[in-house]
Amino acid sequence: MNFDQVNVPRKLVPANYLQLGLEAQRSKQRSFKELVEKRKLPENGWADEQIEELVYQLSALDSNNFPHKVGLGEREARIACRLVARRHYNFGHGIGRSGDLLEAQPKAAGSTLLARLTNALILDLMRAIGVPSCAGCFLVPMCTGMTITLCLQSLRKRRPGAKYVLWSRIDQKSCFKAITAAGLEPVVIPCQIQGESLHTNISSFRDTIKALGVENILCLYTTTSCFAPRNSDDIYEVSKLSQEWDLPHLVNNAYGLQSVDIVRQLERAHRVGRIDYFVQSSDKNLLVPVGGAIVASFNESLLHDVASTYAGRASGSQSLDVFMTLLSLGLNGYQSLIKQRNDNFIYLRENLKKFAQSRGEVVIDSRSNSISLAITLGTIAADRMESITQLGSMLHQRGVSGTRVVVPGQIKTIDGHEFLDFGSHRSDLKVPYLTVASALGVTRIEIDKFFDIFGKCWHQLGQKKESKTILTDKELH
Amino acid sequence: MNFDQVNVPRKLVPANYLQLGLEAQRSKQRSFKELVEKRKLPENGWADEQIEELVYQLSALDSNNFPHKVGLGEREARIACRLVARRHYNFGHGIGRSGDLLEAQPKAAGSTLLARLTNALILDLMRAIGVPSCAGCFLVPMCTGMTITLCLQSLRKRRPGAKYVLWSRIDQKSCFKAITAAGLEPVVIPCQIQGESLHTNISSFRDTIKALGVENILCLYTTTSCFAPRNSDDIYEVSKLSQEWDLPHLVNNAYGLQSVDIVRQLERAHRVGRIDYFVQSSDKNLLVPVGGAIVASFNESLLHDVASTYAGRASGSQSLDVFMTLLSLGLNGYQSLIKQRNDNFIYLRENLKKFAQSRGEVVIDSRSNSISLAITLGTIAADRMESITQLGSMLHQRGVSGTRVVVPGQIKTIDGHEFLDFGSHRSDLKVPYLTVASALGVTRIEIDKFFDIFGKCWHQLGQKKESKTILTDKELH
Amino acid sequence: MNFDQVNVPRKLVPANYLQLGLEAQRSKQRSFKELVEKRKLPENGWADEQIEELVYQLSALDSNNFPHKVGLGEREARIACRLVARRHYNFGHGIGRSGDLLEAQPKAAGSTLLARLTNALILDLMRAIGVPSCAGCFLVPMCTGMTITLCLQSLRKRRPGAKYVLWSRIDQKSCFKAITAAGLEPVVIPCQIQGESLHTNISSFRDTIKALGVENILCLYTTTSCFAPRNSDDIYEVSKLSQEWDLPHLVNNAYGLQSVDIVRQLERAHRVGRIDYFVQSSDKNLLVPVGGAIVASFNESLLHDVASTYAGRASGSQSLDVFMTLLSLGLNGYQSLIKQRNDNFIYLRENLKKFAQSRGEVVIDSRSNSISLAITLGTIAADRMESITQLGSMLHQRGVSGTRVVVPGQIKTIDGHEFLDFGSHRSDLKVPYLTVASALGVTRIEIDKFFDIFGKCWHQLGQKKESKTILTDKELH
Amino acid sequence: MNFDQVNVPRKLVPANYLQLGLEAQRSKQRSFKELVEKRKLPENGWADEQIEELVYQLSALDSNNFPHKVGLGEREARIACRLVARRHYNFGHGIGRSGDLLEAQPKAAGSTLLARLTNALILDLMRAIGVPSCAGCFLVPMCTGMTITLCLQSLRKRRPGAKYVLWSRIDQKSCFKAITAAGLEPVVIPCQIQGESLHTNISSFRDTIKALGVENILCLYTTTSCFAPRNSDDIYEVSKLSQEWDLPHLVNNAYGLQSVDIVRQLERAHRVGRIDYFVQSSDKNLLVPVGGAIVASFNESLLHDVASTYAGRASGSQSLDVFMTLLSLGLNGYQSLIKQRNDNFIYLRENLKKFAQSRGEVVIDSRSNSISLAITLGTIAADRMESITQLGSMLHQRGVSGTRVVVPGQIKTIDGHEFLDFGSHRSDLKVPYLTVASALGVTRIEIDKFFDIFGKCWHQLGQKKESKTILTDKELH
Repeated sequence: MNFDQVNVPRKLVPANYLQLGLEAQRSKQRSFKELVEKRKLPENGWADEQIEELVYQLSALDSNNFPHKVGLGEREARIACRLVARRHYNFGHGIGRSGDLLEAQPKAAGSTLLARLTNALILDLMRAIGVPSCAGCFLVPMCTGMTITLCLQSLRKRRPGAKYVLWSRIDQKSCFKAITAAGLEPVVIPCQIQGESLHTNISSFRDTIKALGVENILCLYTTTSCFAPRNSDDIYEVSKLSQEWDLPHLVNNAYGLQSVDIVRQLERAHRVGRIDYFVQSSDKNLLVPVGGAIVASFNESLLHDVASTYAGRASGSQSLDVFMTLLSLGLNGYQSLIKQRNDNFIYLRENLKKFAQSRGEVVIDSRSNSISLAITLGTIAADRMESITQLGSMLHQRGVSGTRVVVPGQIKTIDGHEFLDFGSHRSDLKVPYLTVASALGVTRIEIDKFFDIFGKCWHQLGQKKESKTILTDKELH
Repeated sequence: MNFDQVNVPRKLVPANYLQLGLEAQRSKQRSFKELVEKRKLPENGWADEQIEELVYQLSALDSNNFPHKVGLGEREARIACRLVARRHYNFGHGIGRSGDLLEAQPKAAGSTLLARLTNALILDLMRAIGVPSCAGCFLVPMCTGMTITLCLQSLRKRRPGAKYVLWSRIDQKSCFKAITAAGLEPVVIPCQIQGESLHTNISSFRDTIKALGVENILCLYTTTSCFAPRNSDDIYEVSKLSQEWDLPHLVNNAYGLQSVDIVRQLERAHRVGRIDYFVQSSDKNLLVPVGGAIVASFNESLLHDVASTYAGRASGSQSLDVFMTLLSLGLNGYQSLIKQRNDNFIYLRENLKKFAQSRGEVVIDSRSNSISLAITLGTIAADRMESITQLGSMLHQRGVSGTRVVVPGQIKTIDGHEFLDFGSHRSDLKVPYLTVASALGVTRIEIDKFFDIFGKCWHQLGQKKESKTILTDKELH
Repeated sequence: MNFDQVNVPRKLVPANYLQLGLEAQRSKQRSFKELVEKRKLPENGWADEQIEELVYQLSALDSNNFPHKVGLGEREARIACRLVARRHYNFGHGIGRSGDLLEAQPKAAGSTLLARLTNALILDLMRAIGVPSCAGCFLVPMCTGMTITLCLQSLRKRRPGAKYVLWSRIDQKSCFKAITAAGLEPVVIPCQIQGESLHTNISSFRDTIKALGVENILCLYTTTSCFAPRNSDDIYEVSKLSQEWDLPHLVNNAYGLQSVDIVRQLERAHRVGRIDYFVQSSDKNLLVPVGGAIVASFNESLLHDVASTYAGRASGSQSLDVFMTLLSLGLNGYQSLIKQRNDNFIYLRENLKKFAQSRGEVVIDSRSNSISLAITLGTIAADRMESITQLGSMLHQRGVSGTRVVVPGQIKTIDGHEFLDFGSHRSDLKVPYLTVASALGVTRIEIDKFFDIFGKCWHQLGQKKESKTILTDKELH
Repeated sequence: MNFDQVNVPRKLVPANYLQLGLEAQRSKQRSFKELVEKRKLPENGWADEQIEELVYQLSALDSNNFPHKVGLGEREARIACRLVARRHYNFGHGIGRSGDLLEAQPKAAGSTLLARLTNALILDLMRAIGVPSCAGCFLVPMCTGMTITLCLQSLRKRRPGAKYVLWSRIDQKSCFKAITAAGLEPVVIPCQIQGESLHTNISSFRDTIKALGVENILCLYTTTSCFAPRNSDDIYEVSKLSQEWDLPHLVNNAYGLQSVDIVRQLERAHRVGRIDYFVQSSDKNLLVPVGGAIVASFNESLLHDVASTYAGRASGSQSLDVFMTLLSLGLNGYQSLIKQRNDNFIYLRENLKKFAQSRGEVVIDSRSNSISLAITLGTIAADRMESITQLGSMLHQRGVSGTRVVVPGQIKTIDGHEFLDFGSHRSDLKVPYLTVASALGVTRIEIDKFFDIFGKCWHQLGQKKESKTILTDKELH
């Protein structure tokens, strides 16, 4: 709907008034044209109204929204509840086509356009923030773990005889289950401990490759973003190994896009070695609701293998979320979020060090982790071990979420594999610790409140008074 | 927020006026209490306002919406774009917990409650419409195909040595890819042709089981809802086979919930034999946007295997859609949709027969298909084969979506398997045909318009005048 | 924002898919063009999305929504609360310009267009439903009473020496206060009683004109829609008087647009005599929230007098409501509402007669009232007068709103004028009665429920059991 | 809808998780309780979700939203268009009752509560920002001018013999029309000119009172906020006059609430003299869409006279806007808006002085005007008078709105009264000037952009190049 070729009668509005109004619309049309034609993330965020107008323009291109549609198939994107229709801006057809997430839908030009444009904007973002060599990427409407499974499944098509996945240990359940879900065999590469900090064990990777035989190995599987005191895996060295042995390399970059260090490391690793896919969560990196992941690659054709492994047509809801969010933030908005996060990380670290010092603890030195920090809980443990298990619960009850207390002695079995000291990414933890993170969107106010509450809980634990426990520590992790 | 224990000053409103207003709220509170406590689908649909109020009440229970939250983890469900937050009613945490779709989240009591209540309502619905023995079900935020893959992956954990999936041929790509995506080996059981109608080949199933060896077979895999002239698989007999050989049986019930015949058949099959899982699309059966599937079982513990195979935390968006839709429709609303669909199927069939008769064609007799119908296109083909390939495009350009033209000679290779006469579910198609469906939500007006347009296209093809083709037939399927 | 001159890259969507989508938009653009150029109410209602798109297009033309506005005046239509901005679709400038409701605003081309188009659509509606001679009309964002005051104020400018307003008695407070608010002198013309039905006393009008002197009389003031057993005033005869004596005639047509009889009477009266203004409520006739009235005239220039009497710029919210409602209904939608109302009136009357008959009461014959009906309450009164005053309250407590119980003996003084038997439009009421109305939007279900509840209350009153009274009868009127 | 007395089954959510969620709701309930019971503006603004929840809770108390309503009256607040219903949060009954804006409605407890609570919050705000003696106030859903008319109409009821309104000249049309609309006789008191600045002529007021006779004078009528170089009227001295002669005093405080100086002056004037009513616009002071005004008084009973002069039931839309806005801002939010405005005024003034100095002009010294500023345009005028009339249009076309160019020689007749040099508030203007204002919500960015554009236009005018004029100067005022 637009005023082109509409002769607005002077009785409705004087022509000169209208002219001024119409002129003001030009910049909007220009930015729309630019967005579609250049497929580039705008520098500055768009106004909400402009975003919604575009989204409605797109959904109007889908056949379920045609005024005179006649639907005689089994899937016509009818939406029974108008609240549901409204919250999806009348999009109903999802994305992709039976068996390929990247295919266009003849019935749904708008959904197609939205999904592809979203992928283009993400790509533009990735290149702008530090991975200029990124060749392509797309949003998968599944969690990071399942998306990694999908990558593994598509790698298997290329290497049908290989079944081992060499995995640098990280104690996060779904990272591991991503392997078993694909029906593959995980091979755990334990981390190397330096001080109390955990690093990628490159020589163990190399030895294991030799021991198992290259032809039997599906891929190397590393993780960047993680809880301290584990560090981001040394993807630089693993990429070199990968290239050396001609083995695929899959990087779980779960929430790594928000860290400048990690992003740069991806680019550097690609330059000297090999990364087939790097996968990241859309919720943690782009601040949308849980439910999507982004597969990226330095080789565009590899992406099609993954897209065509998905068996069916998928939800378009996650694309819509990312699309609206990116338009709303613009490149500048996103970069300022990254900057704030980084500043807050430094602020958190400095304050945590002060907190530790005054209480006889230390912040474990894990310098290749630029998101998460770990503070030892030795003095409390010395006093009374049970106190520590209360700490997480106490913090949670006071509104602090996301901190994790890790204590020695936890054993966990996942799909038949036993992990000692689960949660610590190692099998010989001695000193308990607590992790805190400065993730995208955290505010200085939250950090200040945290220290206030943390201090009070610490004091209370010292006095051994806390009795009621609403959430056990176990429930929290 | 409520008026209990709030002393509203008389200066604001006379007590008796207020009292009448408050009394009118009681029925709302009563229906809310009943919904939560009994976990039953309401008889009658709720008003939009009531649904939204409940949804907001639930999201307020999630930690990201706590007024004084302090988020120091890596995933705090922050939402950057307020349009996105609004469309998700501030839900951000998704459902499940790393590695189990059914687990509760300590950070997200509201998301947990919503997801589980949704599953309870779907279960209640399934029992009410004809599967009283259904023991449980849950919504998976992935398409039907991927959900079938998930079921196969979890079956593999129980039968690690088995790799064959015996699959009654149906020419729908994602049904087949669901097997290969899981890294399993599909074994095609061709349909039996009776007249032009296609039926499950029970003896071929039996022979193949014997030939391959039970221990090597992961499961039998059938499909109910499908395009005519293929019929719904004979799940009654396959269930008996399944029980006889102690083999899992997986039913792709893609859009079968909308058909009374199919629903009843599921219950009957369960009574005499074995069905491990039956999987159905949420969009086609519940009229929500594409993106979810429902796994159901007659054995609740089997469901946990599937839920715990999902590697990660998943989108809650699909649960929200189904939740709102079910509350909006109520049981009566859904049942009246089913009734209308059935009436419209009969109406469509009768009119199609008349149409066929007057043009020297027939409606192929596929009486175990209560959703889709196929009309032969022999006379047009006889005249000029290319005309037929235009027909689908002509209909689509005139606003008719969902009809499919099937012509002999199509060969398609999917993941290394070649299918002759793809689209026809058989390898020796002679007469081309067109399918039309009466799916949930179709209106009589649409059916009437269809015949009007179909008639005109038929006439035009006879005159060989159509030249411009916007969409090729191939693009449409 | 539109796709004209935007080259959508093939990488985003295949050109042929897009083309189909764009073609489907044409009818929308066509109906928009027609609306603006012809200023006619569409035959059929628009979809919600289309209405909202248009409304946003219009508000984007207002300077407060220009992307790069620089506001250095005292009124820049800034909106502090985004919920408020959203509910007004970003409209902030109101309508009119200091001192003229119909003037265009240079800062607000969109608001201007919306207000004027709304007036054009109302005019089109009025002409279509029975007042083809209507020359113009406009929406005033004040209640009917204040709008009548505005009309009186503008008439005073034309007849500065005249101070009397001859008013056919109707016991509705604001009708009367409309005169005193303007600082004028009301002269009450009592109704003529025929049976128990009340009619306009034409001869009393004539006598009073003679007695007071034409030059001292500002206007004649009649009312159409009213509570039975008062009838619609005989505007046909009063119009003739008005023309005969060259006296302005003002018609309070509060909720008369919904009645075919009244609407036709307006046209007929105009043809034989004189009506200067007829004023109607927007909420009662167009089913929007309370707050607006429509001034209409058979002489366009008279309208400008009223518009320029309003001292300031006014709310545009009421125009927006009416605009959206009219587009949503379309002419057909409105006419079917009128038809339903009429059918329901007949249904209500027939059932009320049966109810009355079986209980020894009568429905008072007021055949020039096609909206409201009155049933006598003689038998209850005979038994116990207090019972009657309970009846209204009993009905209200049971969810029945809008019925009125009228009992003899009420005296009310308004601005110094005393009215005996207030509520009955006469000064000698003997038999109490209850009124019920079939107004626009009433449903048959409501009527049926009413009789159910009415019957129960009647029974209960007979048994003298009701004790608790939440709302007194006085509060209800 | 709330969780009290609802037994949430453990199957839906673990009790401890739920408990944490419910505890987080308490502060919300507490702030709701406090708002209603204390009727005080919250210190800090509420979240959007909380505001909407409250608004829906209130509208649910109105009978049109009762689940089982039976409406048999002529006004049942039915809303035909669901978009309209939604934007009004289902409120339909308006505020007040036929003939009194402050009365409660038995059918609409929620609307009543909302309207009265809004008035209470405005009162609380007014007291907090500088008028602690304010006794009461209420929102009138009409513009400032019409609300002043309403005040005059109610004063007339108290002083029926008086017809003159003594009005300190201000060249704003609706201020003047407010008098004639009420059918009263304006008596213009010209301003006193000191330098080029305009002040209230107290001695002329005194002389006119004597000349006309107190009994013939309805009231004294002053204006605070206005365009420079007119100053805010000296309400301190006029109040003393008012008390001395026992004459009502009405203050048009159109956009004065945003100025700390004016607000304090109101309080001071009341302490030494008499102000009956002070009236202010809701849009300019509270940043809501145009359409409402606030009548306030130091004497509560005087307010009821005004409220009961309104003939009818009125729109509740304006109350809703103000209610949501006040809750959204909170007291702190509003006070910080005021502070920013004041800072920006100083910034604007300093920059305007620099601009003037460098171009041989002056900023006219009007120190009792703390919102608007006037800069002379003498040098441009000297060069070419027509250039000046282009200036306003040039600025407007470049996105600057709200500035006014005032040139000598304009004559305007309003309702029979002729004003020389209209726009300048005086009859002997020599030097043209331009006004700019720092109103609530203006940003520093806008001020900077203004000077940039102003400088360019100035330069261009000097070069006599501008030719195309879209908006004439006359259209702009």
